[in-house]
Amino acid sequence: MVAFTKGHGTGNDFVIIADPDGAQEFSAEQVAALCDRHFGIGGDGLLRVVRSAALPEGAVALAENPAAEWFMDYRNADGSVAEMCGNGVRVFAHYLLRTGLAALDEGASLAIGTRAGVREVTRSDDGYRVDIGTWRLSGHDPLARTGGLSVPRPGLGIDVGNPHVVVAIASDAELDGLELTRGPELAPMPEHGANVEFVVPAEPLVQDGIGRVRMRVFERGVGETLSCGTGVVATALAVRHWAGASAPDEWLVEVPGGTLRVTMAPGADGEHAFLSGPAQLAFSGEIELA
Amino acid sequence: MVAFTKGHGTGNDFVIIADPDGAQEFSAEQVAALCDRHFGIGGDGLLRVVRSAALPEGAVALAENPAAEWFMDYRNADGSVAEMCGNGVRVFAHYLLRTGLAALDEGASLAIGTRAGVREVTRSDDGYRVDIGTWRLSGHDPLARTGGLSVPRPGLGIDVGNPHVVVAIASDAELDGLELTRGPELAPMPEHGANVEFVVPAEPLVQDGIGRVRMRVFERGVGETLSCGTGVVATALAVRHWAGASAPDEWLVEVPGGTLRVTMAPGADGEHAFLSGPAQLAFSGEIELA
Repeated sequence: MVAFTKGHGTGNDFVIIADPDGAQEFSAEQVAALCDRHFGIGGDGLLRVVRSAALPEGAVALAENPAAEWFMDYRNADGSVAEMCGNGVRVFAHYLLRTGLAALDEGASLAIGTRAGVREVTRSDDGYRVDIGTWRLSGHDPLARTGGLSVPRPGLGIDVGNPHVVVAIASDAELDGLELTRGPELAPMPEHGANVEFVVPAEPLVQDGIGRVRMRVFERGVGETLSCGTGVVATALAVRHWAGASAPDEWLVEVPGGTLRVTMAPGADGEHAFLSGPAQLAFSGEIELA
Repeated sequence: MVAFTKGHGTGNDFVIIADPDGAQEFSAEQVAALCDRHFGIGGDGLLRVVRSAALPEGAVALAENPAAEWFMDYRNADGSVAEMCGNGVRVFAHYLLRTGLAALDEGASLAIGTRAGVREVTRSDDGYRVDIGTWRLSGHDPLARTGGLSVPRPGLGIDVGNPHVVVAIASDAELDGLELTRGPELAPMPEHGANVEFVVPAEPLVQDGIGRVRMRVFERGVGETLSCGTGVVATALAVRHWAGASAPDEWLVEVPGGTLRVTMAPGADGEHAFLSGPAQLAFSGEIELA
């Protein structure tokens, strides 16, 4: 029997399994079975909680930052290995704190090893705040077409460690009417595909100095999800880009699963984007591995 | 904290909560929260395991059959009260046996109270066999239209305690290509709607004396599901009806979540349909009720 906890951040949900000593390898088939929503526990992915010292990838993280005691071994629901997950890392941090595996004082930061490098997590008013790192305009701005859109719309390509195409939509009604049960068509299609965000800027766009936008997302290889951390970051960056020089560096992005906050701030290696929002543990249990 | 078990029958999945003394009432909101696949445990419905003597509906069951010690208080995932569920009753019986709340000898039957009356469950080679009761042609045979079908197809209305429309599809490829993310259009639409089954009879239809058919189902008010017990029964009845007098009284119906068996046999109040198939418990845990 394997003990697990189920957690989520704005509906982006994860099976969490503590394996401090890295003793428990999961095959792709086992991960897929655990994440299956009808036959298994169900989740968008698996977060294995391992000491960095117990994993080769963890040694890389420790070399980058010796404080990164814990490594987030993140797997997609299909069992494939994934580098990072903006919602997952908040849930991971929350799990460490709730189970006493780590501590995080007000004003301090918790370093978490991931395959995309060490991520720093701090407490925030809305939960946890994660440094997502640098970003860039990808230069690939395809036309996007999907059910519910009468004509193709121009998208803005944004790279946040993974590729995104952000597409502006005219109204809430049009956003709600989009058919996202299959992937939007992009022309030209980026070589490795892209996550596609459909966004409706608020009216007025900026309220109390904070930009506001609604978003729905189709995740590459997954489908429509309730929330996508990097998609939320790409959304804020794209809308700020469109809004011009006077646009703020703080954004609230409403996704189907809740609301997330994106802030931008300069760093030594370029501007960083920070994602903050809630993380919750839903239940705990035990399951027999197939 | 509430202890629960998660179980399924051919992918039709349920949160199971033991409440022998009927002490735990669940509001519609609580049921919906428990069955939410991202924020809660997730499931197609909730099975509350209550002694019949502890519930008013259970008293009705006991009057019908004093052996019906346990009552299946079934709720849909949206929190609404439901009468019966062909897959759920097998999972319910399996839970009673696995937890020692009831026993079922080979050749004996286990009486389970439901809002649709007492159901008799027996062991079968493939798991458990349930008497679904009598059925009838409803006389409402609408045309069905859905994405992936070039022209509307005639449906056969079958009532198995709840209303079904069974629609024959030409090929496996056509069945796989159906767009069932929204409800099929029925013309005329039955007053209370209907579950719609799209079915492909096997070639040859009868093998080793058993009729064979593949099926996908859109459940009224739910959407496409991996399996629907009464839909499987309606499917076998419809295909037998089309096949004529020489058709067998035993059918294997393949659904996206597995395979179920339907047999028909005469009863004092007309022909009964029996559904048999597997039931499994996936995991157990504890959750805080909202």
